[in-house]
Amino acid sequence: MKKTDFGLIGLGVMGKSISLNIADNGFSISVYNRTEDGEAHVVKTFIEKNNTYHNIQGFTSLSEFVASIERPRKIMLMVKAGDAVGSVIEKLLPHLDKNDIIIDGGNSLYSDTIRRSKCLAYKNIYFVGCGISGGEEGARKGPSIMPGGSAKAYAHIAPILEKIAAKDKNNQACCTHIGPNGSGHFVKMIHNGIEYAEMQLLAEIYALLIVNHSNEDIAQILSDWHTRHEASYLLEITIAILRKKEDDTYIIDHILDKALSKGTGSWSSKAALELGIPATMISSAVFARYISTFKDQRVRFSKSIKKKNSLKRVNYKSLEYAYGFARIINHQQGFELIQHASKHYNWALNLSEIARIWTNGCIIRSKLMEDSIVILKGNSSYFDNKTVFERLHNSESDVTKILRHGMSNRVALDTFSSAYNYWVGATTGNSSANMIQALRDYFGAHRYQRNDKDSSEFFHTNWQ
Amino acid sequence: MKKTDFGLIGLGVMGKSISLNIADNGFSISVYNRTEDGEAHVVKTFIEKNNTYHNIQGFTSLSEFVASIERPRKIMLMVKAGDAVGSVIEKLLPHLDKNDIIIDGGNSLYSDTIRRSKCLAYKNIYFVGCGISGGEEGARKGPSIMPGGSAKAYAHIAPILEKIAAKDKNNQACCTHIGPNGSGHFVKMIHNGIEYAEMQLLAEIYALLIVNHSNEDIAQILSDWHTRHEASYLLEITIAILRKKEDDTYIIDHILDKALSKGTGSWSSKAALELGIPATMISSAVFARYISTFKDQRVRFSKSIKKKNSLKRVNYKSLEYAYGFARIINHQQGFELIQHASKHYNWALNLSEIARIWTNGCIIRSKLMEDSIVILKGNSSYFDNKTVFERLHNSESDVTKILRHGMSNRVALDTFSSAYNYWVGATTGNSSANMIQALRDYFGAHRYQRNDKDSSEFFHTNWQ
Repeated sequence: MKKTDFGLIGLGVMGKSISLNIADNGFSISVYNRTEDGEAHVVKTFIEKNNTYHNIQGFTSLSEFVASIERPRKIMLMVKAGDAVGSVIEKLLPHLDKNDIIIDGGNSLYSDTIRRSKCLAYKNIYFVGCGISGGEEGARKGPSIMPGGSAKAYAHIAPILEKIAAKDKNNQACCTHIGPNGSGHFVKMIHNGIEYAEMQLLAEIYALLIVNHSNEDIAQILSDWHTRHEASYLLEITIAILRKKEDDTYIIDHILDKALSKGTGSWSSKAALELGIPATMISSAVFARYISTFKDQRVRFSKSIKKKNSLKRVNYKSLEYAYGFARIINHQQGFELIQHASKHYNWALNLSEIARIWTNGCIIRSKLMEDSIVILKGNSSYFDNKTVFERLHNSESDVTKILRHGMSNRVALDTFSSAYNYWVGATTGNSSANMIQALRDYFGAHRYQRNDKDSSEFFHTNWQ
Repeated sequence: MKKTDFGLIGLGVMGKSISLNIADNGFSISVYNRTEDGEAHVVKTFIEKNNTYHNIQGFTSLSEFVASIERPRKIMLMVKAGDAVGSVIEKLLPHLDKNDIIIDGGNSLYSDTIRRSKCLAYKNIYFVGCGISGGEEGARKGPSIMPGGSAKAYAHIAPILEKIAAKDKNNQACCTHIGPNGSGHFVKMIHNGIEYAEMQLLAEIYALLIVNHSNEDIAQILSDWHTRHEASYLLEITIAILRKKEDDTYIIDHILDKALSKGTGSWSSKAALELGIPATMISSAVFARYISTFKDQRVRFSKSIKKKNSLKRVNYKSLEYAYGFARIINHQQGFELIQHASKHYNWALNLSEIARIWTNGCIIRSKLMEDSIVILKGNSSYFDNKTVFERLHNSESDVTKILRHGMSNRVALDTFSSAYNYWVGATTGNSSANMIQALRDYFGAHRYQRNDKDSSEFFHTNWQ
């Protein structure tokens, strides 16, 4: 029997969609799923349901699965990030040959990917940590793909990945060789981190408007924005959510306000803490979700609060500008994090190219992302772009107007506040951090630099 | 020769101070320091300088050092946190006997301490991860001590640690058995996390006042606060810093505004992210330090900013109340983090007792900490205390006044803002987190709970 072009392990929601996407694009594919934990039927059901696809072969034997794939084998893992990835690799290894390529398509932690790449390199197996964004629909019709690993391995898998990926405005694939080892998963992690903050901004806007607007009114306001600068996938689906009814009532009104999370936002924040980069918006968005989970306490404490909503409506224009402002700061922080990781791990990442593959297929695709291709050229930053800087500066009064409105109405604006304070902090020449240094030197003899002496010198004062 | 009561390895600033403190309290002590890296003279110099102490013996041979100590040996490591601790333990092990006790007095990461405790338990060696706060002066005259480890080991070291510790108002030692394995280092880490946010609040107050006040004026304003609710060690030394002159100029004016950090703030934030607890003030304080380190960019960007300081002075009373408000929120977040770690790791920690040993000897000692002994009784929270809750509620308008003043003067108030948004978020019964859940379900089929159905059920909507 003719060997297949590609192998895929793990027929969950994403694995199934990617498999069909690959088959749709004319490649032959072998698929495998474990049979433990009540999953004995998974492969059979999938093959039966898609029996019009003659280029998909299903296996429940790992050795037969591997043997069915053309060498060097390209095998994608679509299994749960964490220990499962390691355990599948272990089971897979005895069946593989030199130069075979394992592609981890899950949301694995980048440091795990770095470690796995090293281990597998010793065994002459290529390992590609591959971020995939777009959810179920993206995976099925064209996701944004972020593969990290050796350029040699990428050359082998590029024809398939670039074919199944979403296409940008110029019909180029939303897939590019990100860089070595863990860089693909790192970039995907920050993609999700940016997504956390983008979603929290929308939630805060909803919180500001719902005080004295109907769901339909809010959807209409956001629709206007969508026709201008702030067009994005997340804004679009927010509008759809606000309008979605079931049995004559709005679904959004019946959803419990406890936001769960799966880890990539927290990981992004931890990476920022480790790299020394102030990604304040991502972490505030993660913490806002955490606060929401304490629903019982919130309800209990709220009963002792005198709530007074002002009847005054928020200024729509200011809210729109504040939203645009906060989104730029969010992207600035996310790309700065990528930029510093690139330096730290010696990845030589291309920010503009990363923005390009995020213009379609992924959750954070937007008009701003399209503009970012140009803004980030040569790994420049948003703040270094004169037009962007002026736009931010000119929006300052709109942002403060919104923050004041939030205070008047007792609406928590964690992530808008983080955007504002970052902007002010990052554009203040003389800060009050001298006081922090003085305190550290006072109680811990940690020493300080001086503003009137060479900064390579450190000083200690006997303060008492 | 008579065996000594205690052994100490590592004669850095803290090790020397602890040794002299132990000797002053009538215990005999053996001290050891490595001889590599130009440290051959360290022990000799220390012994010569303190030749009036006949109860201190110095060693440069590890085996002789260990042999000189009474069994079960109590040996404290005062070496740099990280790999050094592991490597000293390895060298020490062959010389030790069953039931000997190693005490790690450095700022080790609690997860390292958990791991080391387990490894050493297999070898029948006790390991006590012991937080020590108070800086050089505290170590010398009486620190706050946070030992974590087995109760059996603690019984052996308690007479010495409780003798050298600071004493609270009732003359009880600021030292208590915190709980098992990593709990002592965890609690010390959060102590430092709280310290980060307390320092940042003082830096933000300084930033607000320095716009149109002299250092002396600010010192005078803070001195007034110190006579009332907000008395604390950190406030006291801030006042001293503001008044400190050298050659007729204020030192604070010459300190470079780049705040460095040594890790415990970042670790605290990471623990919060892992445990699902919104410690927003600690992380905002860490990120504020990070922002400060980008001094060159800050200066460059500030040149394009139109700065307009209002001449209006901040309302002192509101600032004082806002400071009190933010400090309570900071303590609430820190103790909540301890409380949840206690549940997660099954440590059975006593919050009130932790507050008690933080009332003297350590950096975050304050009047609020004294009040906290009562507030936290039975592991209750600040918000559950009616008086505290009302005080927070009544200060809300002061806090918003200060945040508005910050905006009018373009002063970044990261940590004050975090305190405010946390308070509002945590006391809002119906939040906008339903929108987050709707978005997650839309693009990722992550499902949501409903507010009109049992929360154990999860739902998915076909949104399109």
